[in-house]
Amino acid sequence: MHTPIRIGIVGYGNLGRGVESAIAKNADMTLVGVFTRRDPASVAPRHPDTRVFAHDELEARADEIDVLVLCGGSKSDLPLQSPALAAHFTIVDSFDTHARIPEHFTAVDAAARAGATTAVISTGWDPGMFSINRVIGEALLPDGDTYTFWGRGLSQGHSDAIRGVAGVAGGVQYTVPSDAAVDAVRAGTRPVLSTRQKHTRECFVVLEAGADAATVREAIVTMPHYFDEYDTTVTFISAEELARDHAAMPHGGFVIRSGSTGDGNAQVIEYGLTLASNPEFTASVLVAYARAAHRLHAAGQHGAHTVFDIAPGLLSPKSPEALRAELL
Amino acid sequence: MHTPIRIGIVGYGNLGRGVESAIAKNADMTLVGVFTRRDPASVAPRHPDTRVFAHDELEARADEIDVLVLCGGSKSDLPLQSPALAAHFTIVDSFDTHARIPEHFTAVDAAARAGATTAVISTGWDPGMFSINRVIGEALLPDGDTYTFWGRGLSQGHSDAIRGVAGVAGGVQYTVPSDAAVDAVRAGTRPVLSTRQKHTRECFVVLEAGADAATVREAIVTMPHYFDEYDTTVTFISAEELARDHAAMPHGGFVIRSGSTGDGNAQVIEYGLTLASNPEFTASVLVAYARAAHRLHAAGQHGAHTVFDIAPGLLSPKSPEALRAELL
Repeated sequence: MHTPIRIGIVGYGNLGRGVESAIAKNADMTLVGVFTRRDPASVAPRHPDTRVFAHDELEARADEIDVLVLCGGSKSDLPLQSPALAAHFTIVDSFDTHARIPEHFTAVDAAARAGATTAVISTGWDPGMFSINRVIGEALLPDGDTYTFWGRGLSQGHSDAIRGVAGVAGGVQYTVPSDAAVDAVRAGTRPVLSTRQKHTRECFVVLEAGADAATVREAIVTMPHYFDEYDTTVTFISAEELARDHAAMPHGGFVIRSGSTGDGNAQVIEYGLTLASNPEFTASVLVAYARAAHRLHAAGQHGAHTVFDIAPGLLSPKSPEALRAELL
Repeated sequence: MHTPIRIGIVGYGNLGRGVESAIAKNADMTLVGVFTRRDPASVAPRHPDTRVFAHDELEARADEIDVLVLCGGSKSDLPLQSPALAAHFTIVDSFDTHARIPEHFTAVDAAARAGATTAVISTGWDPGMFSINRVIGEALLPDGDTYTFWGRGLSQGHSDAIRGVAGVAGGVQYTVPSDAAVDAVRAGTRPVLSTRQKHTRECFVVLEAGADAATVREAIVTMPHYFDEYDTTVTFISAEELARDHAAMPHGGFVIRSGSTGDGNAQVIEYGLTLASNPEFTASVLVAYARAAHRLHAAGQHGAHTVFDIAPGLLSPKSPEALRAELL
């Protein structure tokens, strides 16, 4: 065993807790600690041995850290944190605002090149594992169509949107792929599918005292961008039911490439995830890419990278020889 | 569009024909021709424009070729051809004798380094796409188990074994994953499965005139290595039925990684293939890796590589910028 890879966690929500757990499952890694902008004394880590530091201590502890895993949000944290920290540290992030990835890449790449560090951005499962399968599917079957389905799973963004509706005391939203659409795609018929045909949305809502159910339902199902293009169901439940039945964070989905080779032979590639915990799986992906980032940095590969730039073998703790002998 | 990648095909069976078709679907490639050890005049290519050359012409045409796709067999062709041709050409092969991959890698690596060429060995779907998913699955979920299922599909090796039995005029064998085993794995229960529990084998056999069905059946189902560890069914059919119903070469299967994160959250990753034509899909993979081999060679990355060493983006004709903007 070589010297363990020393990891720092920046930000300690569900994702940060997932990274803490994932590091414990990887014998070639060690956790330096959690760095938080909150009062460190107010943060109770999952494992009692985990040290919690103030975010401001990062620079002073730079010599103790090989890779920082950034666990902040894509909306306001990562656009600032990733370039700022990449100037001094090798980092991994899960920036997932698809439309803004090119500008995020550019900003992080400039910082990492200037600082002679290595950054892996936008990893996780989508973007991340799903993206890899979109690229490989298209490359293997150029005469084909790619379909991405999400769910059944809890959508944080749509749950937030529900909770912003007047009269709503709490709620969650599940994204559900439509069986008929999935079956048609799996059969290799390459259907053209509308947004409405691909997914439905299931909302479980707790009303505020005195709120009108019909008004709340209408406000949700007609909400632009979030619900108006989907068939949406709204089920009203009690606060107790919400806490009891909807606290888990399952998710998943699949990427299907359906194509044709030769004289019309149908070929279907499917990659699917069934996740009991979305943040813990995303964390597991981040940790594997932290290993790759550390190796790329050791090899002098500075600058920003995405999952598209990283060979699969770099994710594994095993040597290339062992991988060829055991898993090829 | 840059100058097309110029591909030569070595060997022209089902796989070579698949490569010929796949190149036609990739706008950034052009086919130099097929190189055969048979009399070129005796080979009828799938596309009338395809040129057929004698194998001996390879050296004289080296300047016209960027990558050779080797389409011979793993038993006797590739162990000799891959190192011999890697000495002078950038090559891709589908060497699939899993136990002998390390020695094949060593031989090809030495030849390619000496010749300043690039080789990608053992690509296709297993080894190949399935191998990538075994490695990534294990890296993401270190606390887990990996399951590989094959089929439903025609097994060439087992079909050959049937045809070697006394009294058999013809026949094919399908490998079939057991539904109960697959369901248990998908459910995340991480079952321990015996060989017999994972797959069944279905044989369709044409008897020679006068052969005894019971004797033939017994010889097949008790055959060591091939059938004795499986539940095997033997169905006797006519030569006409064999030709009519069993000429296609479907295959597929799936790699499932079932693991646990955090305090016992079940996470399941599944990669599956449903292939109407096994050789055409393998050919499609070879062609995508020919693109990667060409790029690696241009970047001065000489020697042997496997799918574990090759970043996904190298398989795509699109630029890194386009991939980030469109598919991440």
